[in-house]
Amino acid sequence: MVLEGIDRALDRCPDSRFLLFGDGSRLTPLLDRHPRLSTVAEVRHTSDVVTDDEKPSVALRTARNSSMRLAIDAVGNGEAQGVVSAGNTGALMAMAKFVLKTLPGIDRPAIATYFPTRRGESVMLDLGANVECSADNLVQFAVMGEVFARNVLKLAQPTIGILNVGAEGRKGNDAVRQAATILAESDLPIRFHGFVEGDDIGAGTVDVIVTDGFTGNIALKTAEGMARLIMHELKAALTGSFTGRLGAALARDALRAFRDHLDPRRYNGAMFLGLNGICVKSHGGTDALGFASAVQVASKLVTDGLNEGIKADYAHFTTDISEDRIEPSGQVATG
Amino acid sequence: MVLEGIDRALDRCPDSRFLLFGDGSRLTPLLDRHPRLSTVAEVRHTSDVVTDDEKPSVALRTARNSSMRLAIDAVGNGEAQGVVSAGNTGALMAMAKFVLKTLPGIDRPAIATYFPTRRGESVMLDLGANVECSADNLVQFAVMGEVFARNVLKLAQPTIGILNVGAEGRKGNDAVRQAATILAESDLPIRFHGFVEGDDIGAGTVDVIVTDGFTGNIALKTAEGMARLIMHELKAALTGSFTGRLGAALARDALRAFRDHLDPRRYNGAMFLGLNGICVKSHGGTDALGFASAVQVASKLVTDGLNEGIKADYAHFTTDISEDRIEPSGQVATG
Repeated sequence: MVLEGIDRALDRCPDSRFLLFGDGSRLTPLLDRHPRLSTVAEVRHTSDVVTDDEKPSVALRTARNSSMRLAIDAVGNGEAQGVVSAGNTGALMAMAKFVLKTLPGIDRPAIATYFPTRRGESVMLDLGANVECSADNLVQFAVMGEVFARNVLKLAQPTIGILNVGAEGRKGNDAVRQAATILAESDLPIRFHGFVEGDDIGAGTVDVIVTDGFTGNIALKTAEGMARLIMHELKAALTGSFTGRLGAALARDALRAFRDHLDPRRYNGAMFLGLNGICVKSHGGTDALGFASAVQVASKLVTDGLNEGIKADYAHFTTDISEDRIEPSGQVATG
Repeated sequence: MVLEGIDRALDRCPDSRFLLFGDGSRLTPLLDRHPRLSTVAEVRHTSDVVTDDEKPSVALRTARNSSMRLAIDAVGNGEAQGVVSAGNTGALMAMAKFVLKTLPGIDRPAIATYFPTRRGESVMLDLGANVECSADNLVQFAVMGEVFARNVLKLAQPTIGILNVGAEGRKGNDAVRQAATILAESDLPIRFHGFVEGDDIGAGTVDVIVTDGFTGNIALKTAEGMARLIMHELKAALTGSFTGRLGAALARDALRAFRDHLDPRRYNGAMFLGLNGICVKSHGGTDALGFASAVQVASKLVTDGLNEGIKADYAHFTTDISEDRIEPSGQVATG
């Protein structure tokens, strides 16, 4: 699945080269089946792996020769410009944070992903790196998301919303209320929309959705589950009658375009933001098409030199945040 | 919308009678347009209303003659057996809790709703009554949900899951981990499945999904938003080409059945569980069909005498919980 995915990704990012960390005796024969990939890929043998149920802290301490760790080390020492893994998310984050370090002003990295909306695409973070978040964490996520939307989604003035249980200022927990106050009263050059609710995600009300990792993870997976349910029901309805089958056959191209547009594999590849290096996490259960998306996400982040732009922007933003926290301006940045 | 909805609901619950609290000068002429409803409905005039942006604590203190409060009072004094409102959720919960009181052993009522799944229907709670929840709150929600699933969904042995960011025991925050430990180690006659993730909701992995009000509200609304996005995309795809339009016309009946099955108005009517009385909250933005669903939910809860069954079950369960907390048995109830 991984090698086939990388091979597919070459269509979209033909200038990429790959270091493949894993069991050489298994990887080399598999690689031989992909002649095009063979010319731009190199196997680095290691028999150590991080299992899916390994505790991140244990993996960090003991799995220094694992494929995951060696792949991250390659980014840390400049041999590679980005890492993609379909393995244990917690271990990947713990190792990436330890090896690559966070960017200046960022306490905790966040996991971000694209999300399809009625208006196109938005970005949502955090999706599970931080189960509990302070107001400061959420403010940092807002800044990371804004910079990402500007640099990667190429939006001139992305809008930011904090996910909450209502649009009114008094709704929610302390963390979201305080974060909203900081963002609304700061001088940060951010278009802070205010609170958004769950249904605003699909509606595309804002370009960046900020939330803690517990809520974000559940919201994302709930949406995926709902999409799967609806696709299942649609198929059942259309195949359940003769006219349904006939209509579906006629509308085949339209239905295929619809399905492809919402295919979760197209949105595979969660980005770790706030690290001194590119790190992308693929869904463990995806296939070659999904893994190709994750590789393309990493490749895009690397080849566009986006991390450098993001780093510069972060430095600018985080100076602003520090100043704001010492001397609140009381001025509302934007609507 | 409200009167038309009640009129529609009469098709499904013809033996119901209605007290309508609100501005008589507006309600009476509207009611005259619904001859069938007129014979079973009575207007109770009041000009006071609770607005949508009223703080619940303020509404509780000052709005003693509001339509919302008088409707709840009618349940409190036995004149009515249940109340349905499309108004301010927080105020409705605060007033209902104050007037009707919670059932023995329940610290905080929860908001529950049906959720469509691949296997039929599940029930999810809390959906916003309690933004922050302790482990004990979550355990009480599990008991309320279990009793509800048995009495209302008529499931012999409903399965219970706690919503989390992973299935493993070490995942999540303190509240979900502790609640899972209490449920797994208790002698409660409950089939506790363990943790479920967001995509398990639509998959129907368990019959009862337990979560805090912050996460539950966002998960529910995210799913609604995703459903709306998909319906929008489907329509756009089918109307975008000639063969798409032709196919859709042929498959019209199948597509209609599909749309109707997932119509969010069918799932309108959130139930307040844990109160000494029936209280149902309708979506504020729904139409007559949606309001009819909310009335039917309340009517079903009333006519089946379910609250009595639930009360008896609660008493049984809560005794068990108290005993468990004093002397943990260490025995796993079920898989």
